[in-house]
Amino acid sequence: MFLKNCWYVAAWDHELIDGAMLARTILGQKLVFYKGESGQIVALDDRCCHRGARLSMGRVEGDDVRCMYHGLKFAPSGQCIQIPGQERIPPKLGVRGYPVVERDHLVWIWMGDPALANPDDILDLPYMHDPKWKGIPAYLHYDANYLLIVDNLSDFAHLAFVHTNTLGGSEEYAFVTKPVAIERLDDGFRVERWHMNSDPPPFHRKVIPNKTDKVDRRNIGRMYVPGIFSLESLFAPAGAGAEKGNLEGAREYRNCQFMTPETESTTHFFWVYLNNFEGEDSNISRSLLASLIEGFMEDKAIIEEQQKVLEEDPDFRMLAVAADVALSHFRWTLERKIEAEQAAQPTPAIAAE
Amino acid sequence: MFLKNCWYVAAWDHELIDGAMLARTILGQKLVFYKGESGQIVALDDRCCHRGARLSMGRVEGDDVRCMYHGLKFAPSGQCIQIPGQERIPPKLGVRGYPVVERDHLVWIWMGDPALANPDDILDLPYMHDPKWKGIPAYLHYDANYLLIVDNLSDFAHLAFVHTNTLGGSEEYAFVTKPVAIERLDDGFRVERWHMNSDPPPFHRKVIPNKTDKVDRRNIGRMYVPGIFSLESLFAPAGAGAEKGNLEGAREYRNCQFMTPETESTTHFFWVYLNNFEGEDSNISRSLLASLIEGFMEDKAIIEEQQKVLEEDPDFRMLAVAADVALSHFRWTLERKIEAEQAAQPTPAIAAE
Amino acid sequence: MFLKNCWYVAAWDHELIDGAMLARTILGQKLVFYKGESGQIVALDDRCCHRGARLSMGRVEGDDVRCMYHGLKFAPSGQCIQIPGQERIPPKLGVRGYPVVERDHLVWIWMGDPALANPDDILDLPYMHDPKWKGIPAYLHYDANYLLIVDNLSDFAHLAFVHTNTLGGSEEYAFVTKPVAIERLDDGFRVERWHMNSDPPPFHRKVIPNKTDKVDRRNIGRMYVPGIFSLESLFAPAGAGAEKGNLEGAREYRNCQFMTPETESTTHFFWVYLNNFEGEDSNISRSLLASLIEGFMEDKAIIEEQQKVLEEDPDFRMLAVAADVALSHFRWTLERKIEAEQAAQPTPAIAAE
Repeated sequence: MFLKNCWYVAAWDHELIDGAMLARTILGQKLVFYKGESGQIVALDDRCCHRGARLSMGRVEGDDVRCMYHGLKFAPSGQCIQIPGQERIPPKLGVRGYPVVERDHLVWIWMGDPALANPDDILDLPYMHDPKWKGIPAYLHYDANYLLIVDNLSDFAHLAFVHTNTLGGSEEYAFVTKPVAIERLDDGFRVERWHMNSDPPPFHRKVIPNKTDKVDRRNIGRMYVPGIFSLESLFAPAGAGAEKGNLEGAREYRNCQFMTPETESTTHFFWVYLNNFEGEDSNISRSLLASLIEGFMEDKAIIEEQQKVLEEDPDFRMLAVAADVALSHFRWTLERKIEAEQAAQPTPAIAAE
Repeated sequence: MFLKNCWYVAAWDHELIDGAMLARTILGQKLVFYKGESGQIVALDDRCCHRGARLSMGRVEGDDVRCMYHGLKFAPSGQCIQIPGQERIPPKLGVRGYPVVERDHLVWIWMGDPALANPDDILDLPYMHDPKWKGIPAYLHYDANYLLIVDNLSDFAHLAFVHTNTLGGSEEYAFVTKPVAIERLDDGFRVERWHMNSDPPPFHRKVIPNKTDKVDRRNIGRMYVPGIFSLESLFAPAGAGAEKGNLEGAREYRNCQFMTPETESTTHFFWVYLNNFEGEDSNISRSLLASLIEGFMEDKAIIEEQQKVLEEDPDFRMLAVAADVALSHFRWTLERKIEAEQAAQPTPAIAAE
Repeated sequence: MFLKNCWYVAAWDHELIDGAMLARTILGQKLVFYKGESGQIVALDDRCCHRGARLSMGRVEGDDVRCMYHGLKFAPSGQCIQIPGQERIPPKLGVRGYPVVERDHLVWIWMGDPALANPDDILDLPYMHDPKWKGIPAYLHYDANYLLIVDNLSDFAHLAFVHTNTLGGSEEYAFVTKPVAIERLDDGFRVERWHMNSDPPPFHRKVIPNKTDKVDRRNIGRMYVPGIFSLESLFAPAGAGAEKGNLEGAREYRNCQFMTPETESTTHFFWVYLNNFEGEDSNISRSLLASLIEGFMEDKAIIEEQQKVLEEDPDFRMLAVAADVALSHFRWTLERKIEAEQAAQPTPAIAAE
């Protein structure tokens, strides 16, 4: 059960080179995406209403798409506008189309009631369009429910054990740091965690000159419904007073992560890891991209096994420990929103007539 | 749900080299085929009645087959005729055998009530045994229900889009040609379609001397229950009056295609593409075989995706357009026959006692 | 449905090199095995009670194991003894641990009620710890229910057909030998079978000097609930009176085979093939190991197909012939024991609280 009436990230816009068709499943729906001649991005059900052939095996013509089985042609709205060898086309004939918005190189899609789709509701992460923040957009596919990735990001303790030699830096992180504050919010949570006088973790050490100087490290995580995470990371010289606001000599990162359900058991994971200290050369971004992939592959190994564990025994119930306050709140919040959506007037079925 | 009381093609006879066992599933039943010492072709359930071992892992002895697990031996009828270490054999002990007929290099099988199996009911396609027609027998396996292949062959419009650069020749075919006649028949349909003054399609162009001369093209398709298709193709010099009966300079093809359900979602597709203009050399047949495989692989890509579409959403209903008159009639006819068969005295169970 | 309150072989002890984690499923339960620092072998559910991560992806620390997702640590009993960042640990928190005993290089596990686990009930096959018997421990994984392997071993007639050229030696074996006696026992059966004046089978011929001398061959098989088989094989000079007790010049083998259900459709198959006539050199054992693997692969091909046959048609019932007395008795005996176990006080659930 997914939250429907909200915006999900469906793609990076570089995935939609003019004319190329992208077949991608979102919330269990098989869709086809393409950027038409006019620049408009189109998202349609990837199934011709005639005999069910995949539109993604078809051909873009202007802003339209033609099914290459028997030649039916569809407008960006999904309406059928040509049937070879047949004059009259029933006006309601077509496939379902979806509201799509391109913003900050992300392609956002609305899977619920189109009447409720408001682009103003798209989450604005200001670093995504601030030229001072630089990074390389990336993507990973997970064989796991998206909430297992949300869980993962919600508890920084896993940095200590999963990422000791990559993103974490030490097991000490799990024992000596504590969340300074966990804020339960209506659309997610905010958590802040300090680790004073610590060694810089390997991914950071690679891109700084003074590799052995101790640092005061602060992570501020913000998770938004349905599954968007921004992480603000600060590394300041140890003892210089970063916790009191002195950010001199500090280096900062912003991690923007977008988890979109592909199906109940698989996830599209889009992210960009931004820094504010590289110059024109993008080598620091390249190093950080490689480090992040290394770290995320560590998560992926554990989380995909976790998915199998949950599938093999549906009676197994995960157990909350003290560190799970944030993720428990997030799941509770999301479930309330899904319940409210279900209780409201049901989304009118957009039949392919 | 399949029609049972009819003949299906199970194999080309070259697949049954003496002594070799062929394990093949027909209508969901796992069978073993072999040609015995006497030349008789045998079809039995591929499962020993003792512990369920595969007879196809056994050994042919004369016209009989021995299970190579514990040595039980079965006659061509399926009756058990030896149990090592045991004197008495219950006379009803055995596996189910099936009526089989070898004709025109095809092996036909009857999956229904054996009492109703009459070899005279086997469809006679005269080109299959007329020495003037030459071709190379071929086989493809489809991961799709056989009726999706029947559908495909029923609407020539797909030639325009699926096979533009192979069997079709132009997208114009879908727009400017019309069926001259669709005949709804009790056991299928007949459809005729002309395309006047057209370029010869690539597969034909490869095997004729005058590659750029325009042609008048006629296709006559005849589909038979349960899933046999013959296609008569004519290419005559454009404007010479082929439509009035002048066939001088014409070249003709006969495509004989046999769709046999392997399971509800997979199909055995046997075919031979015959021509009447090659000499003793079989190079024209070789070129046509390669062209047909190229074209059928285009169909296969679309149809196997279509199968997945139908499986992933059982609620999806295909939609008939004007061009679907023939296939709609065929499906309706087949369903009536299956209903009648179900309503009649049920096929007596042939128990392996 | 498995018998729970009995000892199963879970591993050879050489599989548990110090510190290595072995993830293995027994009776459908995913378990992790390791040998701790003290030498103690530990078996736990392979699933952290916190978020379900695999403990087998964790780290052994002394005799304990740490989950490497969020760092929870578990004692050999399964009790949770550390949660990073949390002071209080509920005393009942943990995962299920299983009684394990290491004996004769085998690791035995008790999957039922731990209160009933008595190491004295472990079957003692004296050859396993008698230095005069030598052999090389081995393992095969089967994609088949373990009872199909038990069946296979219960009827020596299969030697004739499956293993003609490896372990059997001739098809004659199925026709001219008869079980001298089949003893129906409360925990299985004993069967004895003589084959007089026969050629030595290939596996034996490879390791003896007089390769063409006829032999009198005796097999005594003993099958024990839940699935343990010992086979005593004797090859004596033909006509020397072995059947009257003269064993001069005889060579003997002991085959110890342990079938442990992995799941309902897969099996762990442990065995060691012992001989009493090789010297210090182990080349005879090496030859016998290779011969046994060759023979068991012949069984595996048939039995795994048999498993598919049974899965594809749950209505199919295997049919007992005269040779199946022993296996029929064994299955009957096992079913009675499972029924009795089910009828008794249900095994108390060991909840991961």
